[in-house]
Amino acid sequence: MPSESRHSDDLLARAARIRLVCFDVDGTLTDGRLYLDDQGRESKAFHVRDGQGLVLLRRAGMTVALVTARRSAAAERRAAELGVEVHTGVADKRACVAALRERLGLGADEVCFMGDDLPDRAPMREAGLAVAPADAHAWTGDVAHWRTGARGGEGAARELCDLLLAAQGHDAASFERSPA
Amino acid sequence: MPSESRHSDDLLARAARIRLVCFDVDGTLTDGRLYLDDQGRESKAFHVRDGQGLVLLRRAGMTVALVTARRSAAAERRAAELGVEVHTGVADKRACVAALRERLGLGADEVCFMGDDLPDRAPMREAGLAVAPADAHAWTGDVAHWRTGARGGEGAARELCDLLLAAQGHDAASFERSPA
Amino acid sequence: MPSESRHSDDLLARAARIRLVCFDVDGTLTDGRLYLDDQGRESKAFHVRDGQGLVLLRRAGMTVALVTARRSAAAERRAAELGVEVHTGVADKRACVAALRERLGLGADEVCFMGDDLPDRAPMREAGLAVAPADAHAWTGDVAHWRTGARGGEGAARELCDLLLAAQGHDAASFERSPA
Amino acid sequence: MPSESRHSDDLLARAARIRLVCFDVDGTLTDGRLYLDDQGRESKAFHVRDGQGLVLLRRAGMTVALVTARRSAAAERRAAELGVEVHTGVADKRACVAALRERLGLGADEVCFMGDDLPDRAPMREAGLAVAPADAHAWTGDVAHWRTGARGGEGAARELCDLLLAAQGHDAASFERSPA
Repeated sequence: MPSESRHSDDLLARAARIRLVCFDVDGTLTDGRLYLDDQGRESKAFHVRDGQGLVLLRRAGMTVALVTARRSAAAERRAAELGVEVHTGVADKRACVAALRERLGLGADEVCFMGDDLPDRAPMREAGLAVAPADAHAWTGDVAHWRTGARGGEGAARELCDLLLAAQGHDAASFERSPA
Repeated sequence: MPSESRHSDDLLARAARIRLVCFDVDGTLTDGRLYLDDQGRESKAFHVRDGQGLVLLRRAGMTVALVTARRSAAAERRAAELGVEVHTGVADKRACVAALRERLGLGADEVCFMGDDLPDRAPMREAGLAVAPADAHAWTGDVAHWRTGARGGEGAARELCDLLLAAQGHDAASFERSPA
Repeated sequence: MPSESRHSDDLLARAARIRLVCFDVDGTLTDGRLYLDDQGRESKAFHVRDGQGLVLLRRAGMTVALVTARRSAAAERRAAELGVEVHTGVADKRACVAALRERLGLGADEVCFMGDDLPDRAPMREAGLAVAPADAHAWTGDVAHWRTGARGGEGAARELCDLLLAAQGHDAASFERSPA
Repeated sequence: MPSESRHSDDLLARAARIRLVCFDVDGTLTDGRLYLDDQGRESKAFHVRDGQGLVLLRRAGMTVALVTARRSAAAERRAAELGVEVHTGVADKRACVAALRERLGLGADEVCFMGDDLPDRAPMREAGLAVAPADAHAWTGDVAHWRTGARGGEGAARELCDLLLAAQGHDAASFERSPA
């Protein structure tokens, strides 16, 4: 049960400004496992509580996008289910997020990026809030403002959602008062 | 090896009265992972020892129901296999459990609900015994009477079954004396 | 890296006599997860190092059998691959193991059974060596001679194989001297 | 966040010489789980951050090969995706690695082998650098120069990649300066 009170003032100030929240997929919204079968099929596992968090970000008025280098019909299906944007097969994540930000007319300080490895460093460097899961690669250490307590695919994304929602004044009661 | 003796008198008293046991599915009877493949198939993992527990609740005379917001053929199949009720695609879990309770002619204190996130708060608030897995979202904290030691999908449901069975006077020997 | 030296003399003496080694499947050779998809398919995960252990038991002259209450084509396939016996859909595990023992002309003290839950108690009670994985249900506590350090499906079975092989004088070097 | 500074001088010296890096698959590049369904399909899970590491080894000029005793279309597909060599159904891993080494004209001290169980002992004994995942079988203990902090399939291979890259003067910044 993470408590928002332990977050630093700087982190809460960054979180309060976010309007666009971008998530890497493999290793961030999943535990990094790519399941391959002997007939060429690929699976990955999204977490139900992360999905709930992304839906609540939307309900709170933020734009949510999945941004992944890997081509993935599973990521596209999960995004559709949650009603969020998805960009797969992205060679340059920094450029993809920059284009999204411009389309929405947002400043860099209004963008959050969560990622776990080398290709996420560039968009993390430009984001107002850069976050890494507990088990992210060490190379994200110098570009992340915050590392969650949970591992990728095991609630790391929801922990970020909790931070953003709390920093912007939302709690369980407020969502219960105005159902989706 | 959880020992019933550590449970409070209040918890045991609540457990002794239960006649209807309702379980959320994703994150409660599973570890929350939704496996998606690139051809649109979805899987989830139920735990064999949770299933054994649900069967024993039935043998002890309790009614067992799975109640989930998600449409899920897998949940329906698992319920059929275990001989328990199942309600999927449930928009309002509180209303679903209330209808079940009325159909069975039970009081609120005879109902147990186990869940892990925002949509489970309402039925948990109305239940005589509200339980959350170890890794449930913090938002279930103020509505749960008890949090199990095990995580969802890793024996949390069985821990609840153990509590209910012990509180109602059942043990391994009693089940061995009267096989299914 | 489990060390055989920590085992009690009683445990080693029991292990030295074993000629037939029976394993429950779900929760013992797997982590208990039953993966169900939305088209009625079921999967479970065996561990490669457990499989290696079962093959080495065979090479050391022991008979190995999988004994499970659940119907499972996956268990049958895994057994075939490893060259061991398999009995699925077994309503009475005690009777199944007793029949196996008689067919092989063995005494009860030459039989080992590893299981994790209520239906395994009866064959465990009759076995010369009864073993439970670290995460077995508490109800196996009073019938198991030994509980492994590893959980089911994560090396628990291999830990038992290591004990049996060490107690009977086999080590890595002996297997390398006489390859399969 | 593993730090290279904790590695011994001997380990770094061995790592600095490596030109060929061979990985066992099950239990080394995966967590050892073999998922079997009831229709004869088999799956296994590779980790996205291990894959990233293997690609970076290639970019740093090393040859990478997967060497596995098991026949596996999944391993072949993963290798193709990462642009690395793959040898499946290998009865004698030592001979396979020796042939690879000769083809590339390398000395034994330029070869690294990472494995987790009995069949990996022979190629590990001949390698300039022999590595085992945290959860490898105890039998790899006397043939491994180093055991990673991470378990197989959960970043163990990436930890080895990190060691090799650091020992040969590569870091995140160098890869960012010259993209793939």
